[in-house]
Amino acid sequence: MAHEADVVVVGAGLSGLIAARTLLAAGLRPLILEADNRVGGRILTEEALPGLPVDIGAQWIGDTHHRMFALAEELGVPTFPQYDDGETSYELDGSGVLRENAFHARFSGELAELERVLRRLDEMAAEVPPAAPWLAPRAADWDAVTAGAWYDEQGLSPVARTLLEICTVGILAVPTVEVSLLHLLFTIQTCGVTAELFAESEGGAQTTRFVGGTGEIPRRLAALIAEHIVLDAPVQLIGHGRDRVTVHCRGGLIARARRVIVAISPTLAGRIMYDPPLPGRRDQLTQRLPNGSAMKAFFVYDEPFWRADGLNGQIISDVGPARMSNDSGVPGDAHGVILLFLEGEQARVCSQLPEEQRRAALTAELVRHLGPRAARPEAYVDGEWSERQWTRGCYNANCGPLVWTAYGSALAAPIGVIHWASTDTATRWSAYMEGAVDAGERAANAVIAELSDGHR
Amino acid sequence: MAHEADVVVVGAGLSGLIAARTLLAAGLRPLILEADNRVGGRILTEEALPGLPVDIGAQWIGDTHHRMFALAEELGVPTFPQYDDGETSYELDGSGVLRENAFHARFSGELAELERVLRRLDEMAAEVPPAAPWLAPRAADWDAVTAGAWYDEQGLSPVARTLLEICTVGILAVPTVEVSLLHLLFTIQTCGVTAELFAESEGGAQTTRFVGGTGEIPRRLAALIAEHIVLDAPVQLIGHGRDRVTVHCRGGLIARARRVIVAISPTLAGRIMYDPPLPGRRDQLTQRLPNGSAMKAFFVYDEPFWRADGLNGQIISDVGPARMSNDSGVPGDAHGVILLFLEGEQARVCSQLPEEQRRAALTAELVRHLGPRAARPEAYVDGEWSERQWTRGCYNANCGPLVWTAYGSALAAPIGVIHWASTDTATRWSAYMEGAVDAGERAANAVIAELSDGHR
Repeated sequence: MAHEADVVVVGAGLSGLIAARTLLAAGLRPLILEADNRVGGRILTEEALPGLPVDIGAQWIGDTHHRMFALAEELGVPTFPQYDDGETSYELDGSGVLRENAFHARFSGELAELERVLRRLDEMAAEVPPAAPWLAPRAADWDAVTAGAWYDEQGLSPVARTLLEICTVGILAVPTVEVSLLHLLFTIQTCGVTAELFAESEGGAQTTRFVGGTGEIPRRLAALIAEHIVLDAPVQLIGHGRDRVTVHCRGGLIARARRVIVAISPTLAGRIMYDPPLPGRRDQLTQRLPNGSAMKAFFVYDEPFWRADGLNGQIISDVGPARMSNDSGVPGDAHGVILLFLEGEQARVCSQLPEEQRRAALTAELVRHLGPRAARPEAYVDGEWSERQWTRGCYNANCGPLVWTAYGSALAAPIGVIHWASTDTATRWSAYMEGAVDAGERAANAVIAELSDGHR
Repeated sequence: MAHEADVVVVGAGLSGLIAARTLLAAGLRPLILEADNRVGGRILTEEALPGLPVDIGAQWIGDTHHRMFALAEELGVPTFPQYDDGETSYELDGSGVLRENAFHARFSGELAELERVLRRLDEMAAEVPPAAPWLAPRAADWDAVTAGAWYDEQGLSPVARTLLEICTVGILAVPTVEVSLLHLLFTIQTCGVTAELFAESEGGAQTTRFVGGTGEIPRRLAALIAEHIVLDAPVQLIGHGRDRVTVHCRGGLIARARRVIVAISPTLAGRIMYDPPLPGRRDQLTQRLPNGSAMKAFFVYDEPFWRADGLNGQIISDVGPARMSNDSGVPGDAHGVILLFLEGEQARVCSQLPEEQRRAALTAELVRHLGPRAARPEAYVDGEWSERQWTRGCYNANCGPLVWTAYGSALAAPIGVIHWASTDTATRWSAYMEGAVDAGERAANAVIAELSDGHR
C-alpha cells in the first residue's frame, strides 16, 4: 500500500509543482500529495461562459516576475497585457462618482500627500531585509505598531487616508490594523517599491495575464509530472526521523520518502500532526499566520461598453461593496468582463450574504460608475476562498503585531527532514505567484543539496 | 471497533470533564476522547520534591469563582488561602530593588495615574456584553486599536505604563500590542472589574489554592467517570450529519454518537478535519485565536526564608527575566516555594534558552530581591506550554484587532450537531477554570436540550 519516493511534496499548488519539477530535473523521485481534487491551489480558472475563462484566484504577473515569464514561455502559455486605456472611475469620501482627470484635478493636494507617504514607506522598507525582517534596525518598533495606526499618524486628509487603505487592502486582503507596520514594510520590500506593488501600469505587479487563464500554468506543469501527483490525498500525519518521513493521508494512503516539502500556507501546515511534534516556537508561529479574506466577482457583458466611453474598467470607491475593479476581458473574445474585488472586511461581510443580494449590491455599484448597461450582465461568477477547505483564505498569510520579530525565523527554516515552501515563505514577491516559484525552487534546491551530500 | 455513545466529548480538560459529567447526570452516555495520556489539559500538577506538589498550569481560584468552590467541595478537595503577608519587592524603570512601602512612597503619583486608567478601563468594560462583545456601542473603534496603543495614549509616566503592561501581560500572556482593546475590555468584563482581575488580595482571581495541587480536581472528576474516558486518542476527523457524528482518531479508534462537544482551545479545534467542512467564517476565526505564551518556574528552598524577612514572595520587575513572582508554598510542608512567571515575550525568549542558562538568569533575579539564600534552591521545576503538543500555549486564546467584531459570533455558536466548549468560549471568567466549568455546562445543557427535544 505504501508509495515510495525520494521526496514527498505536500500540496500541488504552484510552489509544490515547481518543487517537484525541480527535484525531478535533479534526478530525484518526487511524490505530490494533494488534498483537493485538482492542482493549482490558489490558482483557479473557471469559465464564465463557454470559452471565456475567468481567474477566481491569482490572475496577473508583473514586469519583474522573471521566473513566471520564463515559466510561461517554457510551458507555451502566451501572455497579454492588462487592458489599461482610459480613465479610472473614483468615488471617495462623499465625492460622488468622478472620472480620473476630474478626480485628480479636484484632489491633487490629497494625491500629493499620498505620494509623500508612499515615498516614506519605500524609504523604511529599504531598511527591511526581505529574508529576515526581524533584523531591520527598527524592527522592534515597527513590529509593535499596526500599519493602520501608523497610517493614522501621518496627518493625511480623509481622501488620502482612504485611498491608502484601499490600495493596501488590495494587496493584503485584510484591514491595515490587522498587520504590523513591519509586515507591511516586508511586503513592500519583497516586491520592490510601493510603485511596483500598487500600480497596474508599467512596472507594476499586475501588468500581464495569461491566455486561457492562469490555470494554464499549473495545468501544463502538472501534465509534465502527472505520474508523480496523487489527488484527493489530504495529509493528516507526517512521521519524521533521521533521513526518513512517513506521510499518512486520510483514506489510508501512506507515502515513504527521505524528505518532505510542505508546500501549503502556514496556517494549513499547522493543522497537520507531526510525529515527533514540532517545536513550540514553530507551532505558535503557525497559530499566528491567518490567511486573508478575499473574494472576486465577475460580471460578463456582451461587449466592454465602458471602453468606448473612455473608461478603463477600474473603479476605486469607498462606497462599496467593492473597493476596486478591473477590466478582465480576454483577447479574441468580444465579451466585456468586469472583475470586482471584495477584500478584507468587504469579503467577510459580502460572503455572508445570499448570492442574489451580493450580486444586486455589486450591480448597483457598477451602474453608478459604468452606466445603466452594467445592470444587464450575461453572466455572473464569484468565488470566495475561506469556504474552500484546502485553501481557507487568500491571498496569503499576514502577520499581526510582534509575529515577525518573535517568530519570523521559524517561517522557512527546515526542521530536520521537513522543508517548507508556499509563496508565504518566499523572500521575493512573497504572496505572489513569483514568490511561489521562488519558494518552491528554494526548498527543492535545499533538499537536493542535502540528498547529494548524503550520497557522497 | 466503533465505540457508541450519545455524545462524544473531544478533550479531557476541565471543560470536557464537566460537560461529560453534566451529560451523565442527565442520563446520557458521554465518551471523552483525549489526545494526551492524561486528563486535565491546562491543569497539570507535578511534584517538585516527593510530596510537594507544584502547579505547572492553572493554580488559583478567586472569591467569585462559585462553580469552582462548589466543585472542590463536592470532590472533597480542601482549599487554602494564597500566602499574602508582607511586602512585595519592586524593581521598575531603573528604581533599583525597593520594598512595597518604599516603592509606594516614592511612586505614589504614578500609582494614582495607574488607578485612574484602571477605573477608565472598568467604565469602558462595563459597556461590553460578555456574551457578545461585538455589540458594545463602541465595539468597532475599540476593536481597531490594540490595547498597547491605547495604553500608550493615556499619558502615563514610564513607571505607571510599565506596571500596567506587567499586570496585563500577567493575565493575557501576550504583549498588549497583540490584542485589541475590545479583547482586553472583554477579558475585564468577563471577570468583573480590573480590581478582581489584577489583585491577589481579597476579591481577586488568585486568592485560593487546592490542597494537593489543582490536579486533584480533574483527577477526582475523571475517577468518577473513568469508564467514559479514552486516553491517547487524538481526534483527526469529525464526520457530521443530521443527528449523528462519527469521530475518527489517530490509531484507528472510531466513535459514533448523536452530538459532539469539542472542548479544546479554538486553535486546536481548527486543526481537526470536519466532513463536511465547516463554514469559512468559523475557519477564519480559528486561524485568528492564537494561544498565549506562558511558562512557570518553581524554586524550592528548605524554608520560606523571605517570610521572616517581611516579604510576601511577590516580585514585580521590568528587569527580568521574570516580571512577577509568587509564594507557592504548601501548608503542612516546611519548604519554601517561589514561583516565577514568564509570560509573553519573556516566555518566548526564555523557553529558547538551555535550562541551565534560564535557571541561572532567574536565580540572579531572585537573589537581587530575596537575598543570597535564593541562590541555593533544593529543587527547580519549570514548564512551558507551547511545547506540549496537545495544548500549544497558555493561558488562553487572545484576539488581535478586528477578530471579535468580524468573527466573534462564530466562537461558541454550535454548527449542526457540533458544539464548542473550553474556557475560551466562556462568557464568565473566560480563560479561567471557572470559565471552563461555565462553558462545559453550557455546551452540555444545550446538547441535553436538543436530545430531549428529539425524544419528544
